[in-house]
Amino acid sequence: MSFNTFGRVLRFTSWGESHGVSMGCILDGIPPQLSLCQEEIQRDVNRRRSGLSRFTSQRKETDQVRILSGVFEGKTTGSPVALQILNVDAKSKDYAEIAQLYRPGHADYVTQQKYGIRDWRGGGRSSARETVMRVAAGVIAKKILGEKIVVRAGVSQIGSLAVDCERWDWTHCSHDNLFCPDRKTLPRWQALLDQARKEGTSLGGRIEAQARGVPAGWGAPLYAKLDADLAAALMGINAVKGVEVGAGFAVVSRDGKQNADEMETSDSGAPNFLANNAGGILGGISTGQDLKLSLAIKPTSSIRLPLRTIGADGKGGLKGGVIETKGRHDPCVAIRAVPVVEAMIALVLADHKLLHRAQCG
Amino acid sequence: MSFNTFGRVLRFTSWGESHGVSMGCILDGIPPQLSLCQEEIQRDVNRRRSGLSRFTSQRKETDQVRILSGVFEGKTTGSPVALQILNVDAKSKDYAEIAQLYRPGHADYVTQQKYGIRDWRGGGRSSARETVMRVAAGVIAKKILGEKIVVRAGVSQIGSLAVDCERWDWTHCSHDNLFCPDRKTLPRWQALLDQARKEGTSLGGRIEAQARGVPAGWGAPLYAKLDADLAAALMGINAVKGVEVGAGFAVVSRDGKQNADEMETSDSGAPNFLANNAGGILGGISTGQDLKLSLAIKPTSSIRLPLRTIGADGKGGLKGGVIETKGRHDPCVAIRAVPVVEAMIALVLADHKLLHRAQCG
Amino acid sequence: MSFNTFGRVLRFTSWGESHGVSMGCILDGIPPQLSLCQEEIQRDVNRRRSGLSRFTSQRKETDQVRILSGVFEGKTTGSPVALQILNVDAKSKDYAEIAQLYRPGHADYVTQQKYGIRDWRGGGRSSARETVMRVAAGVIAKKILGEKIVVRAGVSQIGSLAVDCERWDWTHCSHDNLFCPDRKTLPRWQALLDQARKEGTSLGGRIEAQARGVPAGWGAPLYAKLDADLAAALMGINAVKGVEVGAGFAVVSRDGKQNADEMETSDSGAPNFLANNAGGILGGISTGQDLKLSLAIKPTSSIRLPLRTIGADGKGGLKGGVIETKGRHDPCVAIRAVPVVEAMIALVLADHKLLHRAQCG
Amino acid sequence: MSFNTFGRVLRFTSWGESHGVSMGCILDGIPPQLSLCQEEIQRDVNRRRSGLSRFTSQRKETDQVRILSGVFEGKTTGSPVALQILNVDAKSKDYAEIAQLYRPGHADYVTQQKYGIRDWRGGGRSSARETVMRVAAGVIAKKILGEKIVVRAGVSQIGSLAVDCERWDWTHCSHDNLFCPDRKTLPRWQALLDQARKEGTSLGGRIEAQARGVPAGWGAPLYAKLDADLAAALMGINAVKGVEVGAGFAVVSRDGKQNADEMETSDSGAPNFLANNAGGILGGISTGQDLKLSLAIKPTSSIRLPLRTIGADGKGGLKGGVIETKGRHDPCVAIRAVPVVEAMIALVLADHKLLHRAQCG
Repeated sequence: MSFNTFGRVLRFTSWGESHGVSMGCILDGIPPQLSLCQEEIQRDVNRRRSGLSRFTSQRKETDQVRILSGVFEGKTTGSPVALQILNVDAKSKDYAEIAQLYRPGHADYVTQQKYGIRDWRGGGRSSARETVMRVAAGVIAKKILGEKIVVRAGVSQIGSLAVDCERWDWTHCSHDNLFCPDRKTLPRWQALLDQARKEGTSLGGRIEAQARGVPAGWGAPLYAKLDADLAAALMGINAVKGVEVGAGFAVVSRDGKQNADEMETSDSGAPNFLANNAGGILGGISTGQDLKLSLAIKPTSSIRLPLRTIGADGKGGLKGGVIETKGRHDPCVAIRAVPVVEAMIALVLADHKLLHRAQCG
Repeated sequence: MSFNTFGRVLRFTSWGESHGVSMGCILDGIPPQLSLCQEEIQRDVNRRRSGLSRFTSQRKETDQVRILSGVFEGKTTGSPVALQILNVDAKSKDYAEIAQLYRPGHADYVTQQKYGIRDWRGGGRSSARETVMRVAAGVIAKKILGEKIVVRAGVSQIGSLAVDCERWDWTHCSHDNLFCPDRKTLPRWQALLDQARKEGTSLGGRIEAQARGVPAGWGAPLYAKLDADLAAALMGINAVKGVEVGAGFAVVSRDGKQNADEMETSDSGAPNFLANNAGGILGGISTGQDLKLSLAIKPTSSIRLPLRTIGADGKGGLKGGVIETKGRHDPCVAIRAVPVVEAMIALVLADHKLLHRAQCG
Repeated sequence: MSFNTFGRVLRFTSWGESHGVSMGCILDGIPPQLSLCQEEIQRDVNRRRSGLSRFTSQRKETDQVRILSGVFEGKTTGSPVALQILNVDAKSKDYAEIAQLYRPGHADYVTQQKYGIRDWRGGGRSSARETVMRVAAGVIAKKILGEKIVVRAGVSQIGSLAVDCERWDWTHCSHDNLFCPDRKTLPRWQALLDQARKEGTSLGGRIEAQARGVPAGWGAPLYAKLDADLAAALMGINAVKGVEVGAGFAVVSRDGKQNADEMETSDSGAPNFLANNAGGILGGISTGQDLKLSLAIKPTSSIRLPLRTIGADGKGGLKGGVIETKGRHDPCVAIRAVPVVEAMIALVLADHKLLHRAQCG
Repeated sequence: MSFNTFGRVLRFTSWGESHGVSMGCILDGIPPQLSLCQEEIQRDVNRRRSGLSRFTSQRKETDQVRILSGVFEGKTTGSPVALQILNVDAKSKDYAEIAQLYRPGHADYVTQQKYGIRDWRGGGRSSARETVMRVAAGVIAKKILGEKIVVRAGVSQIGSLAVDCERWDWTHCSHDNLFCPDRKTLPRWQALLDQARKEGTSLGGRIEAQARGVPAGWGAPLYAKLDADLAAALMGINAVKGVEVGAGFAVVSRDGKQNADEMETSDSGAPNFLANNAGGILGGISTGQDLKLSLAIKPTSSIRLPLRTIGADGKGGLKGGVIETKGRHDPCVAIRAVPVVEAMIALVLADHKLLHRAQCG
């Protein structure tokens, strides 16, 4: 409802700017008596952290998460959990130029148009730094989902170089700095990224995500459709320009027979689906199959190569010119988006678990 | 928040089942003093109506819209506008078979799993018939947007046959039963659809949509992002499996320079964008350029060709078997989705217009 | 969120004007598989109906409720239940005068100020007629609560004549047209009402309500406090000017010892509360005791006695003057508010039952 | 929607427990470009602070407010403003006894019943300490309202000793530690409070509040009624047991003529209301008159006098007994509630200002 909150009964609210004193979030509606400690949250936050490899931004944030409320003697109390992370390596002077020029592909111009004022330091509220709080809250969401539900994501393509999906290895994916699911592809991506950095440009990427273990019946026929909520959650991640469920855009050129997910009765009485083109969601409700989602992430907008742009007063009063962004940026933001994608999916699913329980017991 | 409502300050709620006595919706939060009459709403509803051509379902619904509240002497009063349409050509006996067998690709199985009860007549609440109310409400949304904002959509691909986007003709598109933007492509699509029908199968489709005239500044940096709200609205239309904003999945294989939307200062002081890869939205906020959206729509799940499936008690107690759907179905649901896409975009934009006014005056 | 909806996971939305074609509501979020038929709803609606005695408005509405959706083979499906009642005895010409003059104590003036347009027929959207839909929806709410929870209300005072609470008889209350809990008081109230009508004036009233069987634990420590939600629900009933929980305003002149609800351990381990000054709610959460609520209802604003007022264009353009309201009005609206009070309490409690289940299982 | 958030387009969310590391809140939806600094917020927070006189709790909290986000170069940016206050004088050992015994009149028992876990230190989330954040956020709400709208409150009664409303002096009220509007009453209240403290008991109180300058037209005819929203906001303040609008419960014994707020046309065309029994709200919408609200606040539940209670495992396993609360408590919580009442009213009004702008421009 509000501009910085999402969720229906499990509600996430974040605050903070990239170069403010700290970032924070509140997760509200958490069931009581779940065990929770800072270390667990830290683990996932570290996966997203910058500076882990030469392929991500060199901003050195320690990203130490602190639980400020909602936990008593190691367990959630049902009260809102507030989490906070200090910003310790904000170098606003790197951004002085963008006080004067709008960066193409960023929210600089539209923020000024909307609000008539802009915290230009590091992109302010529109910085991808905000996603660290989603990752932190996502840990709690996973707790609500329980261990039988596994949410995971990996990079399937960087630039024009896609992995061979036949070779997808989740174990490799989860331990790799590039979240690459195929060890053979890894060195080729590294070379690609090194080259992009050298050329002063950046690369787009594609992410595949999966949620295994979601029971049939979560979601709703209409305006709380599981796929619609997931689409909003994923499209709301910085730089995402496309979202697919199941076969996605491939369905366009198929006929109804090819795209059918036929069913057989299994011994347990549960259906055996003979395919999963639907990506685990029919009519907005989970089928019990794996949820399958894909995302397109645009190349980082901040590049060293010169781009024409306009002066930052929005009225042409400032002289436009050419901008060459020199801040510390990721050559491919898809990489660091992986834990964010997992967190957003977990948050949506946890909300739907509770919503389903509300209506259907 | 609720399962049958969407919107933040302009809120749409619908009710009704495909074969119930009637369908209806409420649009709440409408500004007062807008002129509104049934005929205007009827016009758009008729565009979506079935039976208009041999390429859509032969169910003969008159779809007469009635305004039940919220209008006084031809103008909105600020009270909720309730709209109702009677169902007059529901033939539930055509659906008797699906009381016994779950149709693959439909919500039959998941509805039973979620609720433990299922109104199987015509698909009940999950039928695309519900979308008629969105089209009706969309007319009011367009009034809120005003005449300077034009929202329109067309079919860009059926099966593997795409239109040549260079030949896109909005005038042709808006008058054509197939919402085809290119007169040269039209006969080829007609042949394709006739063949699919003859073979007892169906075809997927792709829709392109545009909103022209949206000022810079609508949306929000985070959880009311314009693109995220649009993604949810479009993914929530029946059969949609993918949504793109701007260049969409094409961004994956681009570099940052190729994908940049550079800017120059125009004489008016407003920026000239040199490209629109972003699709008119940056950081969740409109840029003032055209909004550009694409959708993938799966082939109609109900086909005459036999599909294996399971018995409808969900426990294997009923004998599974083969289903050959004989009801009256569209060979390509993308066609009739076009006015629904326009309506959903208009509803989201109108909500954001009011939201922006709430915060920024 | 929206202006015509309340509830969090069980959401009620109403539409319709007093003299429009019909009134309606939607109740969304209803658990599936509850038995429901029109007759059950009709029973409660009839309790509220006008024309039942000479002490209520003589408008003759049949108030026939029709279920339009959400029920299949006698059971709720989990889809929204839409209810509709036709307006059959609207006499707008009785109201022609109020097109020209604002009635003191009514929403006429403020509606014009807010919206710049006003459906003056019968008070439009602000008419107490809208409450019929709350009563209808309340029947479903009571089903969600189950038979162990009993919500009931009665009139405890009309004008300056209060019942002796020691003589409170719920059986008498529920069968009486005036919802009077004491047969000895009844004739005195009848005389009082006859006199008020004869004098062309009206009387205020007080209502006491109770919910028995609510388990400990519903509500929330902060912004979903059970008492706060109930206060909003009751203050939102037409003509209500005060709401009390438990001892209400009597607590002001008490000390902490007098007002304490001490506890003893019962044999079952559940607490024996030695008093219920809190009215069954502590810190926003139910205690397991009876919920106790009181309301003050102002005398009907429409009276035959002349009242000075202003012309209805809101700008002084129309000549002000004296208004003597001749429509068909209740001499004491507290009477007919009783079923509305019960319905609103039931709706709030049912929402909280589901909310509690969402978070705490 | 969520349990720790209120507001529709201006949304307040709080977190933190009485004896946790800190308290905080987020205010979201704030219009951009309002000047805002910590000192302004501190001023109001100090008014509520404990330890200011011998009549309030002796807990010594400095209550230093820190703005963590949403302000850039002294102005709001439209991003959420996060505020934080450290807890520096929490003495949890004072509360050790309540780990073993439920305090009558507190949320101890119901919290355990609801969540199965309880942060007993200082009452945890249910402590009135949370209200400090409402006061802080209320300062921003007042900025949104602008200087023409004045929201103020005072204590009108302590125990059985009411002020003479004829002698109401807002200037005295605002500077007095007891928020007493009449200098003659003040010494008598001081004596009463000293006596209550000496006796180990506490006193109830009554608060009157006023909002001046609210234009006609805020609110809504139905489920965003201004009076209903205010009733929820005020009933949601700790220890409040009754809320009145305008004449409140006095309307019960009036007739329609006595209670009428007649109108005359003024020279400006705006109406002259000849009375304000409605308290400035008709049909849920502001009339342009002063808003008038009253509250009943129960005597502090924590008293030194012995009260019977039960053991804190909720199952009778712990021995019940007698509790004599020795923590640092206010003898009359109505006093410190005054700034909280003002803040809650300001927050509701600011939300309605923005809501009105959303719909009506």
